[in-house]
Amino acid sequence: MSVRFPDEPGFQGRFAPVRMEGEIRGLEVTQGEVPDVLRGTYYRVGADPAWPPFVDHDFYFNADGIVSMFRFAGGYVDFRTRYVRTPRFVAEREARRSLFGAYRNPYSDDESVAGLSRGLANTNVYWHAGRLLASKEDSPPVQVDPDTLDTVGEWTWEGDLSSQTATAHPKIDPRDGSLVFFGYAAKGETTPDIAYYEADSSGRIVHEAWFTAPYSSMIHDWAVTEHFVIFPIIPLTSDLERLKAGGPYYVWDGSRDVYLGVVPRRGTNVRWFRGTNRFASHIMNAFDDGRHVYIDTPVGEKSAFPWFPDITGAPFDPEKSRGYLSRWTLDTRGDPDEGFSEARLTSCPGEFPRTDERWATSEYRFGVMNLTEVPGQPLDDGLPGFRWLASIDPETGQMRTRFAGRDSTVQEAVFVPPVPDAPHGHGYVLQLVDRHTTASTDLLVLDARRIDAEPVATLRIPIRMPGGLHGNWVSEDQLAQRIG
Amino acid sequence: MSVRFPDEPGFQGRFAPVRMEGEIRGLEVTQGEVPDVLRGTYYRVGADPAWPPFVDHDFYFNADGIVSMFRFAGGYVDFRTRYVRTPRFVAEREARRSLFGAYRNPYSDDESVAGLSRGLANTNVYWHAGRLLASKEDSPPVQVDPDTLDTVGEWTWEGDLSSQTATAHPKIDPRDGSLVFFGYAAKGETTPDIAYYEADSSGRIVHEAWFTAPYSSMIHDWAVTEHFVIFPIIPLTSDLERLKAGGPYYVWDGSRDVYLGVVPRRGTNVRWFRGTNRFASHIMNAFDDGRHVYIDTPVGEKSAFPWFPDITGAPFDPEKSRGYLSRWTLDTRGDPDEGFSEARLTSCPGEFPRTDERWATSEYRFGVMNLTEVPGQPLDDGLPGFRWLASIDPETGQMRTRFAGRDSTVQEAVFVPPVPDAPHGHGYVLQLVDRHTTASTDLLVLDARRIDAEPVATLRIPIRMPGGLHGNWVSEDQLAQRIG
Repeated sequence: MSVRFPDEPGFQGRFAPVRMEGEIRGLEVTQGEVPDVLRGTYYRVGADPAWPPFVDHDFYFNADGIVSMFRFAGGYVDFRTRYVRTPRFVAEREARRSLFGAYRNPYSDDESVAGLSRGLANTNVYWHAGRLLASKEDSPPVQVDPDTLDTVGEWTWEGDLSSQTATAHPKIDPRDGSLVFFGYAAKGETTPDIAYYEADSSGRIVHEAWFTAPYSSMIHDWAVTEHFVIFPIIPLTSDLERLKAGGPYYVWDGSRDVYLGVVPRRGTNVRWFRGTNRFASHIMNAFDDGRHVYIDTPVGEKSAFPWFPDITGAPFDPEKSRGYLSRWTLDTRGDPDEGFSEARLTSCPGEFPRTDERWATSEYRFGVMNLTEVPGQPLDDGLPGFRWLASIDPETGQMRTRFAGRDSTVQEAVFVPPVPDAPHGHGYVLQLVDRHTTASTDLLVLDARRIDAEPVATLRIPIRMPGGLHGNWVSEDQLAQRIG
Repeated sequence: MSVRFPDEPGFQGRFAPVRMEGEIRGLEVTQGEVPDVLRGTYYRVGADPAWPPFVDHDFYFNADGIVSMFRFAGGYVDFRTRYVRTPRFVAEREARRSLFGAYRNPYSDDESVAGLSRGLANTNVYWHAGRLLASKEDSPPVQVDPDTLDTVGEWTWEGDLSSQTATAHPKIDPRDGSLVFFGYAAKGETTPDIAYYEADSSGRIVHEAWFTAPYSSMIHDWAVTEHFVIFPIIPLTSDLERLKAGGPYYVWDGSRDVYLGVVPRRGTNVRWFRGTNRFASHIMNAFDDGRHVYIDTPVGEKSAFPWFPDITGAPFDPEKSRGYLSRWTLDTRGDPDEGFSEARLTSCPGEFPRTDERWATSEYRFGVMNLTEVPGQPLDDGLPGFRWLASIDPETGQMRTRFAGRDSTVQEAVFVPPVPDAPHGHGYVLQLVDRHTTASTDLLVLDARRIDAEPVATLRIPIRMPGGLHGNWVSEDQLAQRIG
């Protein structure tokens, strides 16, 4: 009954759970100075198992969400980190052990928790209409207090969320502050149902439409433009019978086509555009010219997730899992079977693309992403992981790259405008960098236009930060409009 | 105005401030099992600067006290760590910078904090009469909530503490639960005044007596036996004019004799026994036979504190600073000028001696201490620091030693009886071990009778623990009698 984590790579060494909640007042600035103009809070969520897993061979997608915040004011940065009190977290904390089983598999749970929400709030944390929401795509988001990180409770848009789930990658349309989002597996795990919503800037759901996907798959991210929303159906497929039999939630099916479901904004009809088999996950940005849609996303030959097996039994292929930032172009008035075209934007494999969110859904010239390799800069140590940050102009493909260090791993970067009307891509990029040799983490403040220069400031967090997923900057002005 | 710590060894690398407050529910047990019989809480205090120092060349004696707790119940251990909210800590947190100057030097402070308590509560945390008290010898202790570690406030024994200070090394007489304690510099910094107190088991001061030391010095620890209390005057001397001039609070004066001030328990008269120059700090235990007093303490030729200079200007001498556990024997009816005799108990240099506190003030057979060297086990890496734990029978000098590892540092160990009436020295030893290569800390649960065997359990704390001083075990039964 001791608290002991498995003797597996995912739970040991630099992947060992951290599990510490707490705060540091005034992070040490080890280099540079924190710009006074940065006033707001960078929130991010990590996945860190509070208790040893209930099942064998668990992975961090199935770990508890822990939200961290970095509050910038007057050149100081205060740090706080706290688990989201999901019903699942609360039940397991009370029992002092895991009770929930495999990733998104309710059939593998301890019977004592039957019917309880399986949500983990471990994928993204975003701000909309005065609320800070921690989310995972298999459940509704959980509202978190933006100052204390205490959990307020599940947020279902005042009960208007008819889907059982809500994406961890909603988009905010800068034109009117709408939250554009969806749920997949919307009628239950493995169902092909998709619910599309828009909530207005006050947080009220003003549009809802339901669709059925060509097949059940992971719809982790999606594309939103001024006039369209696009659901990418990528063949990480799910199946209820397999799930009930204790099989993996997803398998990679290299025989299936990819589909892009295109729906007019606030529309109710979908057209499915078919393309050949490939893998993509996160969207850097997307936009349209009224007829054509442009979607920028890293594209690989096969799934990037080694813990979801190939349906053929083929071993995981790191080479084919590399994603290269590419642009998909699609004629919304064209023949769905002619599909969409693809053009590679970079020769560097990477993921975690982000943009200047003020240009989200619009034609844009600035993005950042993390790279695993940069041609011409070989490391030859055979280690996987993201060790470079890149800024990129997606129109020209021009990049700047920043090497984090041989024994470092970069986490998702975010762009922060110094003032609301700063020019596109002018501002700062914030990025957490894991420092493996010192078991600590640096938060870099970079000049967005010169990410390859000396950081504007480096802040030291004296602990490892649990493996992180996504985060967002919330300005002081936004925070002043908090609700609850 | 950035938060940046000095580029000095005491603030960098494994000595870099941690500054993190927080908690971990259910520490990971990486080896063994936590005995069910361990029910209670191990409290310890570290010194960790909340802000970069106000003065140059600061050292950790002048850093903020941060109390950590390890609560044992049912084979689980919950961890929590929190700064003591001294008036000084609160003022500096509000200002987001240090305002208090050099170690125990009010003349070096920012004028905005004139008159505010300079206490840091960074030396010991102990339990008496239902209260948990964090203490430093230059001020009264601060009461801390035993569950939350929130600060209750300064504790002056309901105003009965007439001294300006109270030792961080009070003793509890197991016969009746009395707290036997004193203050030195009792009428203000560098004064030679000593106030001796006893508080009964309800926490009420029932005895007070005042004495004047032969000269002003650090009286960090002292000896208490059934019939006597003994004040060791060791020539780390203080001087008000030097302090006002910005000089060090203490200097080592190798020309001065050592004195032991012997006072009958609850008596009012002192006899000063004179001995030759030497250094000692912590007392493992002391006892008497009605006439003779026996005091066990590590004794060195010179001060062990490199940050207090030699009065002659001689550089710090690591060789001469080594302390060897020794027994001082003193005939309370003898000639004070004949002084006391000394016999070395071990050939291993060390410090942080502790005993089975149920035998405190009585003849005893069990102690533990940390060693820097063990003859015959040379490491030849030239690194300083405590890397061995030893258990010792002070009557025979027999020792067992445990090597913590080349890249490890052991912190003060404590003995815990599994049940109140367990035989002397039968039980567990708890010890924090800093693991430098992983920037983490292990809490070892050792069999007190076989500290050289495989630990009973090893718990992993995934952060560095700030440089620690003293701590104590508080049983579940004691905690049930908490006040406030």
